[in-house]
Amino acid sequence: MLAAARRWRAAGKTIGLVPTMGALHAGHLSLVEHACRENAVVVVSIFVNPIQFGPGEDFERYPRDPKHDAQLLGQAGIDAIYRPAAGVMYPMGAATRVRVVGVSERLEGAARPGHFEGVATVVTKLFAAVQPDRAYFGQKDAQQVAVVRRVAGDLDLGVEIRVAPTIREADGLALSSRNAYLEPAERRSATSLSAALRLATEAYARGERHPQALTDVLRARLEAEPLARVDYAEVVDPATFRPPGLLAVVAVWIGKTRLIDNHDLSQPFPG
Amino acid sequence: MLAAARRWRAAGKTIGLVPTMGALHAGHLSLVEHACRENAVVVVSIFVNPIQFGPGEDFERYPRDPKHDAQLLGQAGIDAIYRPAAGVMYPMGAATRVRVVGVSERLEGAARPGHFEGVATVVTKLFAAVQPDRAYFGQKDAQQVAVVRRVAGDLDLGVEIRVAPTIREADGLALSSRNAYLEPAERRSATSLSAALRLATEAYARGERHPQALTDVLRARLEAEPLARVDYAEVVDPATFRPPGLLAVVAVWIGKTRLIDNHDLSQPFPG
Repeated sequence: MLAAARRWRAAGKTIGLVPTMGALHAGHLSLVEHACRENAVVVVSIFVNPIQFGPGEDFERYPRDPKHDAQLLGQAGIDAIYRPAAGVMYPMGAATRVRVVGVSERLEGAARPGHFEGVATVVTKLFAAVQPDRAYFGQKDAQQVAVVRRVAGDLDLGVEIRVAPTIREADGLALSSRNAYLEPAERRSATSLSAALRLATEAYARGERHPQALTDVLRARLEAEPLARVDYAEVVDPATFRPPGLLAVVAVWIGKTRLIDNHDLSQPFPG
Repeated sequence: MLAAARRWRAAGKTIGLVPTMGALHAGHLSLVEHACRENAVVVVSIFVNPIQFGPGEDFERYPRDPKHDAQLLGQAGIDAIYRPAAGVMYPMGAATRVRVVGVSERLEGAARPGHFEGVATVVTKLFAAVQPDRAYFGQKDAQQVAVVRRVAGDLDLGVEIRVAPTIREADGLALSSRNAYLEPAERRSATSLSAALRLATEAYARGERHPQALTDVLRARLEAEPLARVDYAEVVDPATFRPPGLLAVVAVWIGKTRLIDNHDLSQPFPG
């Protein structure tokens, strides 16, 4: 991969990277489209990164569909798929980890110990191997975006982090590979995340500014859903993931599936 | 720096990096010579990295002599000096750290908590900015070499780590910028490190293979020195820095100055 990247660079071509864990959906394809518009060469990496899953999380059952992924990417006009094997990424004896203090510690970081260290480490490796000018991430994983921005900036990786809006189903549910886990009744309950974000956005638009009141709006809607169990619901700064701020972030268990979503309350809720 | 590195790479030139903290001596110049033989372009970085010094260590008094450094490098035929400011390397809010488990935890890592995390972080940043094909380190800092090898390999940085032999004074003392701290009586005591390594090498050459016996040889010579206080003296594996192995490593306080040295017992001791 590095040899190919160096050849592209030597030929003066810009490189865009879309890092994914496969099980691609329209959200990923939106990132690919952004990348294709802005770079001469586009690489999509597909790697279900074991070290960003905690013990008891869904690493084993995380959806994998390489044929469908290849089919989707075949129509997308990209230049390469980088699909390293786990034994190549983390060979026996590998011992180096990248961590970000502060932004990686609360919310997703607290709920999933080690998750962001796994993300920061794999992103550093992917950036080193692909040498991108720009890398593309979805707003859906907003805290991941904040962590990756710190890594890229703090380690002088020379990669611009580009963020594309969350893609949603018609009923508001944010696209996620994990939506495939949902039973029909759970799928209906899962709209509670976007519904809660929409209600908080409307409250903000009506002039509500008190953080606790906005959080209460989020919680009330989520807790009204019998199948939902709230992990967190807060309004935070999008760079530090601490209050005060205008980014509403929610994490909710729907049965055995944990879903996240977020929205900047100062912006209209789409749809 | 990254823009210059990308131009050199685009022109098909190989890049060698010699990372230093300045206060250059013949040991550094030996690394520079190696780099100049093997690369089209050679960059020497000079950065006294604050995060690899612990509280109470010698960050403030670490020797700095930019004029002398520039003079030495002016005669060395290098292409660039990279001398970033501390506020550029670690701006307000910087929060990302690189750490290596295992090899960074014992000996120097135990004596200097946080030291190797600082080394691993700054080396990742320097490699990202300079984009070297090869980077040059001295055998004198053997555990640092082991840590940096892991970082470069584990993070896919595409940098070959090259190691040059320790350069010694006529009486055996390994060159180090910290030798400048030594008072005349301390300077005489400081030869005990290389003398101990020589004695252990001779014991090994005579057939001594018992790790404890070899360690005893090291300790006996060091403890015979009134001004010396042994921090550690062990015989370890050069990749893991755990026993068993053939690399004798010593750290000794001479007054307020902490010196380190090492030698592979299977090789003749120089001089």
